Order: sequence, then structure tokens, then C-alpha cells
Amino acid sequence: MRCEIVAIGTELLLGQIVDTNSSWIGEQLALIGIDSHFQVKVGDNFDRMEQTIRQALDRSDAVICCGGLGPTQDDITREVIAAIMGVGLEREEAVVDTIREMFESRGRVMVDNNRRQADIPIGASLIPQMPGTAPGLICPVSANGDDKVIYAVPGVPHEMRTMMGGTILDDLRRRSGEEAVIRSRVLRTWGDSESGLAERLAARIEHLDTLGNPTLAFQASGMEGIKVRITAKAADEEATTAIIGAEEAVLRELIGDVIFGIDDQSMEVVVLDLLGQRGLSLAVAEGLTGGVLSARLSEVDHDLATFLGGRVGGDVGGKPVDQLRSGADIAAEAAKDVRHDFGANLGLAVISAQAHDGQAPGTVFMHLAMDRAQHGGTVSLPGDRARFRNYAVINVLNFLRKILADI
Amino acid sequence: MRCEIVAIGTELLLGQIVDTNSSWIGEQLALIGIDSHFQVKVGDNFDRMEQTIRQALDRSDAVICCGGLGPTQDDITREVIAAIMGVGLEREEAVVDTIREMFESRGRVMVDNNRRQADIPIGASLIPQMPGTAPGLICPVSANGDDKVIYAVPGVPHEMRTMMGGTILDDLRRRSGEEAVIRSRVLRTWGDSESGLAERLAARIEHLDTLGNPTLAFQASGMEGIKVRITAKAADEEATTAIIGAEEAVLRELIGDVIFGIDDQSMEVVVLDLLGQRGLSLAVAEGLTGGVLSARLSEVDHDLATFLGGRVGGDVGGKPVDQLRSGADIAAEAAKDVRHDFGANLGLAVISAQAHDGQAPGTVFMHLAMDRAQHGGTVSLPGDRARFRNYAVINVLNFLRKILADI
Repeated sequence: MRCEIVAIGTELLLGQIVDTNSSWIGEQLALIGIDSHFQVKVGDNFDRMEQTIRQALDRSDAVICCGGLGPTQDDITREVIAAIMGVGLEREEAVVDTIREMFESRGRVMVDNNRRQADIPIGASLIPQMPGTAPGLICPVSANGDDKVIYAVPGVPHEMRTMMGGTILDDLRRRSGEEAVIRSRVLRTWGDSESGLAERLAARIEHLDTLGNPTLAFQASGMEGIKVRITAKAADEEATTAIIGAEEAVLRELIGDVIFGIDDQSMEVVVLDLLGQRGLSLAVAEGLTGGVLSARLSEVDHDLATFLGGRVGGDVGGKPVDQLRSGADIAAEAAKDVRHDFGANLGLAVISAQAHDGQAPGTVFMHLAMDRAQHGGTVSLPGDRARFRNYAVINVLNFLRKILADI
Repeated sequence: MRCEIVAIGTELLLGQIVDTNSSWIGEQLALIGIDSHFQVKVGDNFDRMEQTIRQALDRSDAVICCGGLGPTQDDITREVIAAIMGVGLEREEAVVDTIREMFESRGRVMVDNNRRQADIPIGASLIPQMPGTAPGLICPVSANGDDKVIYAVPGVPHEMRTMMGGTILDDLRRRSGEEAVIRSRVLRTWGDSESGLAERLAARIEHLDTLGNPTLAFQASGMEGIKVRITAKAADEEATTAIIGAEEAVLRELIGDVIFGIDDQSMEVVVLDLLGQRGLSLAVAEGLTGGVLSARLSEVDHDLATFLGGRVGGDVGGKPVDQLRSGADIAAEAAKDVRHDFGANLGLAVISAQAHDGQAPGTVFMHLAMDRAQHGGTVSLPGDRARFRNYAVINVLNFLRKILADI
């Protein structure tokens, strides 16, 4: 079964709002095994909306229209759908009452425009969930001799999501007659390129291609490494879990050295988990990364319970590495100092060589000071400065992760 | 002139990546007066890509294809465009050399797949900017008897933006034959709501509506305040500058109290400028903002020349404010300590009350320690924790900005 998504609103085309709705809906459809081959953004224009929705109906079994259900004159999704259905609009007085009550409960008076939101194409039914003043619609329509359906949901993300989760996804599954369950798991990697991974996994991918299930897909996530997604289809949840688990084991044999986490686990989540499991606290000293490392760690560890804090700049800041002290020495000193200063089990320092200190620019010095052991490392990074420091941060997190994994 | 945007990649349809590229491109096109009526996401599928690009060519004068230029087998934008042009692909050895050099400079070896990135449709030309391993393409094509153009850019946002800004936008303007110059300036505000600003500017907007030029538009930018965009159209650059300058002066009379900067000036850029002009250095102490303030300041002041650095957590960290010391006292102490510790002219502290210390949750204590003067402030913020700390950071920057403006 195919479902196309049409995101409606001139503000989307003008880039005033990023269309995150289509992405979210696309993800939900994929998880229940429904294909979405096209997702189109179109402005608040009758002809272009009609053309887009008709084309979507022509090549898919269902269309989800997102947006254009508001109270103002440029919100015309109701009218366009009625035209495609070949019917008129009818005002639902019960919906007018609901909208009026919503306004009154907020101490406001409903303006006349809001009545338009209660105009429903004749033959359409209402989506029961209605978190805002715009009702969602299920509109049966005939196209190419087949019974198809247009859903209309508001562009406000939480309203759209409530209607998708409460009604539309179930309705689509029922219509598709699809019994199979589709699930996926992402293996997150750091340290190899997409083409490098593709080569290391070439034989496995070729083998899976002959099987057809599960499938593998790569996803470059820039600064966050490459994701390898395993997708499995089976009769039930349990069976997909088994297929995915078996495939993950195979992949860990092949590229386990670069896998740092799964699904939504960022590098800092993994590092903080490892610290927590070992009962270790951490303080950091940052040079040119300027607080980015601290910000990422504290984003996860809000209460600064495991990541105790750190020092930005100062002795490890923008100053040149002088003749007497190498970058490695400065990092080692800073790591020991910050460990002591914050009373942490571990002190981690990351500093960068400057262009004028005899070190290659782009060289990052990392040091982890522990109770007994000391670990130093360097890495050379490409990229402009804004990207450089983000690269440096993920590298130093990975440096820490690898040491922790061996403790 | 019309330009359609086609975002390519199955990962976009599956919601694994949100398509922010189309939004950004749509905004840039609007600024130079080019309409974008449709923006389509399509997967890595030859037939559907071809169908989508052909339809875009049919109803627009230019098409920007974003994505599908990578090294793997599913990156087929080059092949699809060649098919639409009715030509073959030719490997550009000079591009192979450039790609190889990029890999070598990072100490890596180019894999065979990357050679594919140098395959160019015959008759296409290369976009001079090439920040990554994927060359961008300008592909002349004939459709409906007209000379049209397909641009191909990588899906990596910074690579796409470099090519758009360096080549494509100029090329589109030249093709459009548009003689009028359209320019805009954004006035950035903090401290009033969109509806509040709309009320204060209502009479002015009504007046401009009768003139037609310049125009004003509001753009809510969440954490970064509300942008007020002045757009002017005139015969040349100089004339647009004069119109915009005159309008800016009028608006500053009306809402100057909340304008903190223009265009790309973030709050931290403005603050660092003010510090620089006054020859003052700054160090910061951060509690629950956990490094975000430091990261934002050092993002602009890479070399930590004006922003010397700071301290995250520790005494001002996640610990409860105890009975003996109020949040205001702790902030004052931390500001003085960090000023002294880093030898800075100014010490700025930002800490948050915890739910259990008798202060309302969401209360932020700010303190600026100077040579002679001391400034304290508090602000109560709404929002979940992730948003909370970003709100706290912009508030403390605005707190500092206002004090600096009076020095």
C-alpha cells in the first residue's frame, strides 16, 4: 500500500517553517510497512493544491494532507478536497459548538472566521481526536476506479500527531490488510567512511539482497558518524526482533570496532552510561572546543551528577603551545588539574595546536587522567573551524569511550 | 521565473533526516524574487526521480536537485540527469585527482566507489565550489522547446549552501533577466511577542501596505527572538540600501528598545562586539546551562581573545541552593570568583534555582561582577529543561548586552 504526503502552506515553500511533519509521518508509515514514494510541499493555491492532491491519488492509495485547515481565508484545504470529491461543504454545528467551547474555556471569544473550520465536505467523516480548533477529516474518494482516501490533518505538529496516532495509522493498516510487522534498528558507527563501511559490508549486503529480508541501509549523519539501519519484516514483533538480533550479531562481527551505540544513543549517552556503570565521575578541561564538550555532556546529564563540570579556556585556551611545553604535556597537566579541582575520578582534557607553534594545524591533543593510569592521544582533523571543534568533541568522546570499554 | 526543488533520498521519505535544505533554498529564492511553487521529496529510485525531475522541468524554468551525489550505488542523481539530458556520463579525471587529494590530506585512502563521484553528464559544467567530495553540476536541458537548467548539489547542508551562495543564486538571477534588485535586512528583536510587535507596528504596516515598497514581515525564530524583515525592491543596490536604511530608522523609533542586532548578528556576536569596542574581557561561571553559554561565545570568539573562558558546574552546578546562601548570593560570588580566576575585566554568572530550595523552579539568577560595579538580575523562565537552558543563555546574554550598552 502506498500513501503520499502533501504538506500545504506557502510559508513552507518560503522556508519560514521547516516541514518536519512529512518526515515524522514518513517514519510512522515506514514502521507499519506502508510505502511513501513522494512527499510534496505546495503553497496555499487552489489549482496547485488540486493538481498535487489529484496526482497523489493517481499514484497512491491514500493521501495525507497536512495544513490549510486554519480559520483564515488562505486555509482552503477543505474546499480543495470537496472539489476533488465532487461534493459541497456542509457546516457541522456540533463542531462549531466544540470550537466555541474551546475559546470560552480560554476566556476568549470565537471570531466568525473560526466557523469556517466546521465546514466539512459532504460524505467526509470527522477524526475523533481534536486537540485544537481544526477538525481532522477522513474523505473517501474514488480514483482510477478504486476506492481511495484523503486524510486532512492540521499543520500544528502536536495536533497532527494526535490524529495520526489516534486514528489514521490504524485506519491505514486496516485498509492495507497488511499483517506483517516491520521494525528496524540503527547501529551507530564512528571512525570509518560510508564508502569504507560499504566495502567492508559488500559481501554481506550482496547475500542479504538474495534473501530480501532483512535489509541494510547506510545513513551518513555528518558529525555523528554513519548509521547502519537493519530493517526486518515478519509475522509478529517477536520474529522481527529475532531477525534483527541475529543480523546485529553478524554485523558486530564485521564492523564491531566502529559501532558505538544503537538507535538514539549519541556518543555522550554511551560515554555517560559507561561512566555510570563503573561508578566514575568526570571533569573536563576544554581548549579550543570552548564549552561544546561540556554542553553536550550536560545536555544528557542535566544535574551534573556524573559529569561534574569543567573548565573552558584559561591555561588550555587560545594561547600558543610554547617551546617548552608540548601540546601533549599541556593536555596531561590540564587533565590532572581539572580532575583535582572538581574532585572527579577522571579528568579529561582536549586542546588544539595552533598554526604557529610548530605543530600541524588541526592537531588535537587528548588526555585522560585517572587515579593510577594516564592515557594520551592525538588526532589530526580536517575542516573549517566551526566543524573542527565539533569533530574534536566527538573524537575525544570516542577516545574516552574506548578507554572506558576496557576498564 | 520559477524554480522547483527536488530533494532526493529515501532517508528523507523515511523521516531519518528532516529535509531542511529545501526550506533554506526556498528562502534564498524568495529573497531574489524567484517563485518556488512545488518542492518534492523523492527516494533513490531511477524512475520516480526521472518522473519528478521531468515534471518539475515541465512546470518550472529551473530545477535544483539536492542529494544523491554520494559515492554509493544508491546515489544515482548523475545517471538520472544524464538520461533526462539524453547524454552519457564521462569521468573527469581532474575531479578524481581532487577527491584523491582530499582523502590523502586526511590521511585516508580513496576507495574505488569515490571515482563515481567524478562522473559528469556530457554537456554539464562543474560548480567551481567543491567543499566536499561531491562536485555540483549545472546541466543545460531543453524542455517544452525552452532552454532550462537542472542544478545538482550534494545533500550535505554546508556543501549545498556553499554552492548556492557561490554560483547558483547568481546564475538564476542572470537567467531570470530580473533587473530590479531585491534586498532585505532583518532587525532582530528580543523581549516582545510577535503579536506585541504587530500591535506596535500596526499603523506603520498599514502605511507601507498603501506604498507597496518596502514590505515588512515577521518571523518567529523561537529561542532567538522575533525577526522583522524589511524587503525593498529598486533599480540598483544603492537605491535598495537607501530605502532599507530609511525604514530601519523609522522602525528603531518605534521598537528600538527590543532590537538587539541585524541580519546574522546573534546575541553573542552583539555582546562580543560591545566588549571589543570597550576593550573589556569576560569570563563566565555556568550552573545548569552546563557549557552552552561558553560554547556560544567561543563559537564566535574562536581564539578566546575577549571571552577568556569559564567554569562549568562545580560550586554553581547542580547542587541545591542552601538555606544560608540565596541564589543571588551564589551568583554574585561565582561571578567574582571567575573574574578573579581568569583575570578578566568582567565576570558573569548564571545559575538556576532548583525545585527544592524554596525558590520557584525556573528562576534564573544572573550576576555581572565588574571592577567597581555589581549588577544582579533574575528572570523566571517557562519550558522543559532542554529549552530552559537555551532560554537562560539568551536571557543572560541580553542582561549583559543591556549593561554594556550603558557603559
